[in-house]
Amino acid sequence: MTDPFVRTRGLFDLPPGIVYLDGNSLGPLPKSVPERLQREIATEWGRKLIGGWNLSGWYRLPETVGDKIARLIGAPPGSVVAGDSTSVNLHKALTAALSMTDRKVVLSDTGNFPTDLYVAQMALAALGRGHELKLVAPEDVAVAIDGEVAVLMLTEVDYRTGRLHDMKALTAKAHAAGALTIWDLAHSAGALPVDLLGAGADFAVGCGYKYLNGGPGAPAFTYVRPGAAEAAQPAVAGWMGHEAPFAFDTDYRPAPGSTRMRVGTPPILSMAALDAALDAWNSIDMADVRSASIALSELFIAEVERSCPGLVLASPRDPKHRGSQVSFRHAHGYAVMQALIARGVIGDFRAPDIMRFGFTPLYLRGEDVRQAAATLADILAGASWDRPEFHARAAVT
Amino acid sequence: MTDPFVRTRGLFDLPPGIVYLDGNSLGPLPKSVPERLQREIATEWGRKLIGGWNLSGWYRLPETVGDKIARLIGAPPGSVVAGDSTSVNLHKALTAALSMTDRKVVLSDTGNFPTDLYVAQMALAALGRGHELKLVAPEDVAVAIDGEVAVLMLTEVDYRTGRLHDMKALTAKAHAAGALTIWDLAHSAGALPVDLLGAGADFAVGCGYKYLNGGPGAPAFTYVRPGAAEAAQPAVAGWMGHEAPFAFDTDYRPAPGSTRMRVGTPPILSMAALDAALDAWNSIDMADVRSASIALSELFIAEVERSCPGLVLASPRDPKHRGSQVSFRHAHGYAVMQALIARGVIGDFRAPDIMRFGFTPLYLRGEDVRQAAATLADILAGASWDRPEFHARAAVT
Repeated sequence: MTDPFVRTRGLFDLPPGIVYLDGNSLGPLPKSVPERLQREIATEWGRKLIGGWNLSGWYRLPETVGDKIARLIGAPPGSVVAGDSTSVNLHKALTAALSMTDRKVVLSDTGNFPTDLYVAQMALAALGRGHELKLVAPEDVAVAIDGEVAVLMLTEVDYRTGRLHDMKALTAKAHAAGALTIWDLAHSAGALPVDLLGAGADFAVGCGYKYLNGGPGAPAFTYVRPGAAEAAQPAVAGWMGHEAPFAFDTDYRPAPGSTRMRVGTPPILSMAALDAALDAWNSIDMADVRSASIALSELFIAEVERSCPGLVLASPRDPKHRGSQVSFRHAHGYAVMQALIARGVIGDFRAPDIMRFGFTPLYLRGEDVRQAAATLADILAGASWDRPEFHARAAVT
Repeated sequence: MTDPFVRTRGLFDLPPGIVYLDGNSLGPLPKSVPERLQREIATEWGRKLIGGWNLSGWYRLPETVGDKIARLIGAPPGSVVAGDSTSVNLHKALTAALSMTDRKVVLSDTGNFPTDLYVAQMALAALGRGHELKLVAPEDVAVAIDGEVAVLMLTEVDYRTGRLHDMKALTAKAHAAGALTIWDLAHSAGALPVDLLGAGADFAVGCGYKYLNGGPGAPAFTYVRPGAAEAAQPAVAGWMGHEAPFAFDTDYRPAPGSTRMRVGTPPILSMAALDAALDAWNSIDMADVRSASIALSELFIAEVERSCPGLVLASPRDPKHRGSQVSFRHAHGYAVMQALIARGVIGDFRAPDIMRFGFTPLYLRGEDVRQAAATLADILAGASWDRPEFHARAAVT
């Protein structure tokens, strides 16, 4: 069988000598992006000016990009729109879901990415009608789904440990209890196969700048289940989600389908970078990504556990229960990660003691993983925790 | 006196032979942008990867850009953050304002840009607590301000006619009645002097892609009056508005000041373009912009009225009551505008009969205005409304 990633490895512009294991935080630069942006700026904006909205495809770019993402997350064409940030999109999805039920409880878990919890806290506080955000441990989510739950709001892959929720089973259980579901795919889209339609998920949001490699702060995306969209009334509405934006009516009439999740004018330069980046996924099957990702992460775990005493696996050991990242705990994790970065192996750190490593088959090979593990072993073997390089101030990102 | 715009005219890359009178819709390309984006992409993203968030100033870019905008709208440093779209920012400002009062009426006018009305309609509907959006004619706003108004929400310059509200007087009247104020500066920022602090405005939002020339869909901005921010609880919150985003606490604690109006990860490429574009305003005084804008628009009105019978001025005749655009009505306005564009004079059209022309001294001169008026006169003189070019389908943008 031909390795489908031989082609994709040539599509990324990685600094020489670097092993980049942080594509779960910010994907690297696709080679197609500089030329696309140069054209978008100099020609489409510079020459066509206002005409770019029609002549350059800007107006429909949220749907064009959305359709490219849809293919990767098991969503039908037309059900995904790109734009805004993941947080803003989650606010839209949550308020839309709450518009479809009289129940008051939003159920999530304590392992959810904090911004998702902030979105819910402030949205529910603003509603001021007795809504409640109920948080349970990730492993207790299934038993906590009951007839009071309005919305089950989860991130599929835990940002610290990589622990993977069972989207299909939890969605089914939520539906059986009469609840709606919102899935945050920040660490799923482009990381593993997602089957939104098959799982029956009602809403999903996700991120353009991690595994999709759209660039820093790339637009996020929103999925609405076909059939659910017509009932959904997001609290944040704007002209580009209107049925007829250029009629300039004073009354809001939501556009059909997911387009109603559009709000204001989208950031075209960032959106064009994401659009170009997504072409790396052409003809890539997410099942192949998953096999290769598991092979890389299993190799990394084996190499680290063989050569790096003192590191404790923080991710699920069974790859079926893990996303596309592997995390290890170490009491001096921050310092170790700084030392790794200084030697060209880039992962990241999450307090208090987690080192994260993301595995992205589009541009990573087994030899990269071996080199990363060997560098880590070397650092740990030579480490004296009194040395100043292990006491740098904690970075903010 | 030296013309301060001799320098700025050299900073824009306009297509040869074009008179661009649509900078009130999408500003043209500043020459500084291609190089900045090339560096941002190839070096900051491509080489520094995730490190760009600290090393390249990405994390603070919303505040960096916000401070550049603040100088143009009479806002103190630290009171403006860039990011999201104008619509999303208006939603944040409106929900934040409503969190500060028990009153239920949002007062606006029928001339407001429709997206502002959509934002309010859907936000109030989501609250579900009996809030009401009250719309009056623009000239009736002052008398409609009473003790029931929670928030006066207006766009300073009418997007069709250029009619200018008296921000200072209306804000004072609103405050005297115990109401808060939100000003949409979409057609004000970079168009005319704005004195947010002097007027005592509580919130303001505005657009990065019109007079600020930040590129298609450039990030918008939000102002919160120093002193008001600590009481404001926007309904849309996210990690970048948290007091300590990288503590990853599960509880939201808003950052001090306007930073709490940040939500998710901002689109850095689009934000960097806006940042570069704003440097065109260095050492420019908005009072000079205003004088030059009035000179250009008065010249245009005089030339058109002299040479174009059949056109009816839709803008206030007194420049004190007008923003930086001039609109004329014509029964065949759409067709006339298409003919103008075909001859290199770019304005735009708003149904049913308004032709808009924006005046932007940073890159326009009197001779451009004369040429535009002469072209318009020539088209009207030769027009036969039966000819097919006057019956093209209405454009969507």
